[in-house]
Amino acid sequence: MKAFEGYEERVRKGFHGQGFMGYINAELISVEPGACVIRVPYNENLTQQNGFFHGGITGTLADNSAGFAAYSVMKPEETPLTVEFKINLVNKAVGAFLQAEANVLKAGRLLKICESKVYTINEAGEKTLCAVALATISTMIPR
Amino acid sequence: MKAFEGYEERVRKGFHGQGFMGYINAELISVEPGACVIRVPYNENLTQQNGFFHGGITGTLADNSAGFAAYSVMKPEETPLTVEFKINLVNKAVGAFLQAEANVLKAGRLLKICESKVYTINEAGEKTLCAVALATISTMIPR
Amino acid sequence: MKAFEGYEERVRKGFHGQGFMGYINAELISVEPGACVIRVPYNENLTQQNGFFHGGITGTLADNSAGFAAYSVMKPEETPLTVEFKINLVNKAVGAFLQAEANVLKAGRLLKICESKVYTINEAGEKTLCAVALATISTMIPR
Amino acid sequence: MKAFEGYEERVRKGFHGQGFMGYINAELISVEPGACVIRVPYNENLTQQNGFFHGGITGTLADNSAGFAAYSVMKPEETPLTVEFKINLVNKAVGAFLQAEANVLKAGRLLKICESKVYTINEAGEKTLCAVALATISTMIPR
Repeated sequence: MKAFEGYEERVRKGFHGQGFMGYINAELISVEPGACVIRVPYNENLTQQNGFFHGGITGTLADNSAGFAAYSVMKPEETPLTVEFKINLVNKAVGAFLQAEANVLKAGRLLKICESKVYTINEAGEKTLCAVALATISTMIPR
Repeated sequence: MKAFEGYEERVRKGFHGQGFMGYINAELISVEPGACVIRVPYNENLTQQNGFFHGGITGTLADNSAGFAAYSVMKPEETPLTVEFKINLVNKAVGAFLQAEANVLKAGRLLKICESKVYTINEAGEKTLCAVALATISTMIPR
Repeated sequence: MKAFEGYEERVRKGFHGQGFMGYINAELISVEPGACVIRVPYNENLTQQNGFFHGGITGTLADNSAGFAAYSVMKPEETPLTVEFKINLVNKAVGAFLQAEANVLKAGRLLKICESKVYTINEAGEKTLCAVALATISTMIPR
Repeated sequence: MKAFEGYEERVRKGFHGQGFMGYINAELISVEPGACVIRVPYNENLTQQNGFFHGGITGTLADNSAGFAAYSVMKPEETPLTVEFKINLVNKAVGAFLQAEANVLKAGRLLKICESKVYTINEAGEKTLCAVALATISTMIPR
């Protein structure tokens, strides 16, 4: 997928400009044209009542990795805005890390359609699918 | 909608058992049979790059209010688990508070289908629709 | 919600231009600014294995009523295109008619976010909620 | 993925028991444990206003292929029921055929989570991605 020069810098700047990503200790693992990986380490502050990662954190990573995957293929002056996303939680979110991996399935001029898969990663580095999501990201074009 | 005695206490206990709700200063505003309202005050730690509430927070409140609305009509020994949710973000999440209001549309034995509407509330107390969501909540029955 | 002159005629023309609507004997019951109602009578050709309306028909009506509700508030030269929709089937689709009622929740310049509720209607005219849906409709602007 | 003896026969019988599949000339191309492919040939009766396959047909195939993929891994006495599905339409549905390919991502006891990809196929046999969907299929267990 085609990206414009400086895309990685723009994505990293956008990521670090989000107060919420810092607050949950999220890390931008990688960004490539049309793809993005975000990870968050386990912490009691991010849990639901059974001590698993909260579904809201899983949704946050799914949405945000999709948004930045979409951002990576936008023009330098454009910015992403989530229109909607849908997520299925398929396994308990138990692990040392929660990692979302997003890909742009279709890069339209105004809308980018993305798929995110969220995994838990245990101490041994083994990944287990935890959630799948589809997201529609709008391209904000300055007028 | 029918609820079992002690439902409010069970919902409040579940809510306060979630580390993530405390971490984002969320407040359980009200719970009634088949309905739940959750609110979070604005804080820079909850923002995206433009200083608005992060979409992940909006999704978290939509999902969680749905889960607790579903919990309110479960039997005392049952607990809720989100199967999936879908959210459309319809307006910028700018305001003093973000408030999610969920209702159970259908209370099946195993699955509860819920609708959530998320609003921003400004200093004057005016509400603006910010997001709409549909969620499928599973009923965990101890065997 | 604001509509442009001639909106009803444009919606009716669009509806009758869809071969599939004729093939399933769908009827455009009403269209108002930001709202649309579509109905289909029961027929064995529209069923799943238990003789209920097929979920694909329920989805079709939910999507299409949303698309035409969105169309009703577009400018005369604009046309609707479904970006995505999500539907929860909450009750068996058994009845003399299946009726979808859609409303535009947010009419943005490029995207219209709509909610559809699908009901079954029995011989006595009683309505039962059968499905709920959220749809994102794009506004196609000729360039 | 594990399937029980006779799964293909059960899926084929279920498919042919749906009046709607016959009405749109849909063909069950293949069924394997946890996977199903359904195809429909182009026909003016299945179109929207521009002569493309109607989005309702695309949704029908996405949902139905998911349902039968789920059915393929159920026990002989169990049957599938769609809880919900979500679909993104990513390209115009123009072609000689519309083909949906579904896979079970997670086969839980009560719920099967499936992914469907819908393609258009032209006269030369070339496939183009047309839609992506996620579906939640419930396992109906006789009591």
